[in-house]
Amino acid sequence: MRLDNNFFGLRLDGGVAGGYKDIPWHRGVSSELRQGRMAMSEVITAVDAIDVRFPTSRELDGSDAMNPEPDYSAAYVTIRTSGGEEGFGLAFTVGRGNEVQVAAIRALAPLVVGLPVADVLADLGSFSQTLTGDSQLRWLGPHKGAIHMAAGAIVNAAWDLYARREGKPLWRLLAEMSPAQLVGLVDFRYLRDALTPEEALDILQRAQPGREQRQKDLLALGYPAYTTTPGWLGYTDEKLVRLAREAVADGFDLIKLKVGADNDADVRRMALAREAVGPDIRIAIDANQAWGVRQAIDWLGPLAEYDPYWIEEPTSPDDVLGHAAIRGAIAPIKVATGEHCHNQVMFKQLLQAQAIDVLQMDATRVAGVNENIAILLLAAKFGVPVCPHAGGVGLCEMVQHLAMFDYVAVSGSTDDRLIEYVDHLHQHFADPVVIREGRYVAPELPGTGARMHPESVAAYSFPNGPQWNSSEES
Amino acid sequence: MRLDNNFFGLRLDGGVAGGYKDIPWHRGVSSELRQGRMAMSEVITAVDAIDVRFPTSRELDGSDAMNPEPDYSAAYVTIRTSGGEEGFGLAFTVGRGNEVQVAAIRALAPLVVGLPVADVLADLGSFSQTLTGDSQLRWLGPHKGAIHMAAGAIVNAAWDLYARREGKPLWRLLAEMSPAQLVGLVDFRYLRDALTPEEALDILQRAQPGREQRQKDLLALGYPAYTTTPGWLGYTDEKLVRLAREAVADGFDLIKLKVGADNDADVRRMALAREAVGPDIRIAIDANQAWGVRQAIDWLGPLAEYDPYWIEEPTSPDDVLGHAAIRGAIAPIKVATGEHCHNQVMFKQLLQAQAIDVLQMDATRVAGVNENIAILLLAAKFGVPVCPHAGGVGLCEMVQHLAMFDYVAVSGSTDDRLIEYVDHLHQHFADPVVIREGRYVAPELPGTGARMHPESVAAYSFPNGPQWNSSEES
Repeated sequence: MRLDNNFFGLRLDGGVAGGYKDIPWHRGVSSELRQGRMAMSEVITAVDAIDVRFPTSRELDGSDAMNPEPDYSAAYVTIRTSGGEEGFGLAFTVGRGNEVQVAAIRALAPLVVGLPVADVLADLGSFSQTLTGDSQLRWLGPHKGAIHMAAGAIVNAAWDLYARREGKPLWRLLAEMSPAQLVGLVDFRYLRDALTPEEALDILQRAQPGREQRQKDLLALGYPAYTTTPGWLGYTDEKLVRLAREAVADGFDLIKLKVGADNDADVRRMALAREAVGPDIRIAIDANQAWGVRQAIDWLGPLAEYDPYWIEEPTSPDDVLGHAAIRGAIAPIKVATGEHCHNQVMFKQLLQAQAIDVLQMDATRVAGVNENIAILLLAAKFGVPVCPHAGGVGLCEMVQHLAMFDYVAVSGSTDDRLIEYVDHLHQHFADPVVIREGRYVAPELPGTGARMHPESVAAYSFPNGPQWNSSEES
Repeated sequence: MRLDNNFFGLRLDGGVAGGYKDIPWHRGVSSELRQGRMAMSEVITAVDAIDVRFPTSRELDGSDAMNPEPDYSAAYVTIRTSGGEEGFGLAFTVGRGNEVQVAAIRALAPLVVGLPVADVLADLGSFSQTLTGDSQLRWLGPHKGAIHMAAGAIVNAAWDLYARREGKPLWRLLAEMSPAQLVGLVDFRYLRDALTPEEALDILQRAQPGREQRQKDLLALGYPAYTTTPGWLGYTDEKLVRLAREAVADGFDLIKLKVGADNDADVRRMALAREAVGPDIRIAIDANQAWGVRQAIDWLGPLAEYDPYWIEEPTSPDDVLGHAAIRGAIAPIKVATGEHCHNQVMFKQLLQAQAIDVLQMDATRVAGVNENIAILLLAAKFGVPVCPHAGGVGLCEMVQHLAMFDYVAVSGSTDDRLIEYVDHLHQHFADPVVIREGRYVAPELPGTGARMHPESVAAYSFPNGPQWNSSEES
């Protein structure tokens, strides 16, 4: 047993399988303690992880060059506490393997169960490092893949619990923390050659004037969005054109097309889209890692005349030097990546190598809110705009908070910045995103946006939920 | 069901949970077919994965700056076939989380079960890409972490099956393949900007003259080794000095010390080790990722006077640019890394950026033999020696084959090259490594070295094997 089982003088002896999960010990303490010191002695009693999958492959929603038939899925986390409060988080996957993601979350749970809630919330920096730094579990990464996304899901659930307790949406909770508090959330071990704590503090302090005004502007105007809805590779040309026109009518001024499977088809679809939206709407294209470095440069040649705004994931997400080479060859087309960029060390290098024009952070790929704050600070240091990846399951709901926090308290700007928007699966969330005239409306309910409807979790749980356990299953 | 269930005209209708695992269909076919066309129609019937853990933390074997208490573990794979042949592989971990590694292997198993053995072995390049390229499972990486190591464990088990069938140790099986066959094993998608198939072919063809002589020399003389046994961080100074002297007496001319937890202690231990072994024995040091970039440079200052040969893992394994900066600052001390380098794209960049002097490939971190062939070819192209990481569970047994193949058929040299050796846990393997006068003796039994004794697998299976399910459990 690694956890110290002595909290505030309450000695809990006896080894119990599964840690404190199985001990409803708080029911046993005196009523004085329950009423008087409850908040102080509240502990995390469970970290539940559920395999939730949506059969999106049936409609080819989400189809791209590398993901022909995704079933958008979530390894869905609930942190439970002895006081009855809860926090929600998730790791997004695309179907098969979601059970591995669930197993990774369960592997981390014993590090968390039994911790006093007040201690966790008072030092989420240490909490995050506990999850990413376990000497045995980190071997599965380190700081990458299923174990790192699992840490992110739990860290985000802790932030959700914190935001609910404070009665604030995450973006506002973060935007109202002091620069020193924010710097304390970041693990600088591998960052100092690019960003020191002092530089981070300076960035945040410089953004302090105007915080209140930007918060008001955000609440009044929302945050710019772009849409990927028209551009999935599995859609017909007719559907592409229709959805592209609808997107413009809905107020979007940037749409995105998937490319990379067939060069001729990409040229045809890009031409159709450009014709449909006219010259003033930006069209980003996304290859989802389909190419090698030279192949990317060659493939983009015939697409250039249709004025693509950025090329996203032109090659392996690990290839910092490859992205730099592509960027040098294809300017003024911008290079964007990040949804598969697995940690802050990789983002650091993408910035150091001047490999990207657009940084696409993701809410659930890295180790949660803490690592994403580090990434926002790195982007601010290097002057690269952040345009978060979203879509999937709950990614819009979650990542909007980070972009809005960035606007209010870090970069202080929405110039060249937009959050991806895809209109799938929002109905399953308790606080679904609202898009108005091509902009995200700032959420005002407490939390991080990750909470799903219990009915949705039950219906789509895999493999035994009613949506899977029926004759429709493929 | 994604697998085509029509093999050689045998139609196997009906969806069965778990794929073909549960169908002993080969028992049902005619005896003519069983006897006459057996080899042709043999299929993979199962991919078993077992959680095996050794309680090494009880003795602090394997302790370093980031791994204070590892329990060396293996997610142990057995490929079973309808003909009764088997192949063995494993992914190495350090304890907690080994169950996640097992889950990742099980997630890949349905891609493999049912495949004709002859097809798999005739095109292990495609087989490897099937495992690393699954459109849903790759989301958990891509090409990194638990899902990538799982692919490696299965790919290696297929190679073990192949080597057993051919009656050859893996190193000889590979060394006797043609340059064209070897090039066909590699996935060049993300490599071509650094290494084209034509360049790889050229490297292998240039190594053809002398293959036979080098094979004879290898069998006569073995391959150079170095030892990490004296240097674990948890050992006392007395034990360090005693083991260092023993290592020299045993014929080793390079030993390795763990550093990175305490600068003063590192200087003391390095001085003791240098005094114990004299000026002519090389001492490598290994920080296991403990430092940031600038911190690494500072930490090495007071150690330099004791003439460290290389510094291993000075910082995050993901930090290509950081390694390059450290290398520039600390020359002539060499920079080594690779045991946590998660794929060939990262190795490509370490070489492109001139970030390393020594490339430390690992048998189970990347996607198996195929990706390691790519890494050997990259190293040969850039002229960087490969000194494989070993130790752990079965890593010595497995990785020696790759180094020996490199000597016979790729780089053609053992100059500046050594394989790590740690004298733990070999007794659990069917073909344990043999070290003679500081050199690995070339294995001659068929296979890749991954096969464990069934009694060891049973005794140390976690959590229910007798070695864990007793009063000794911590």
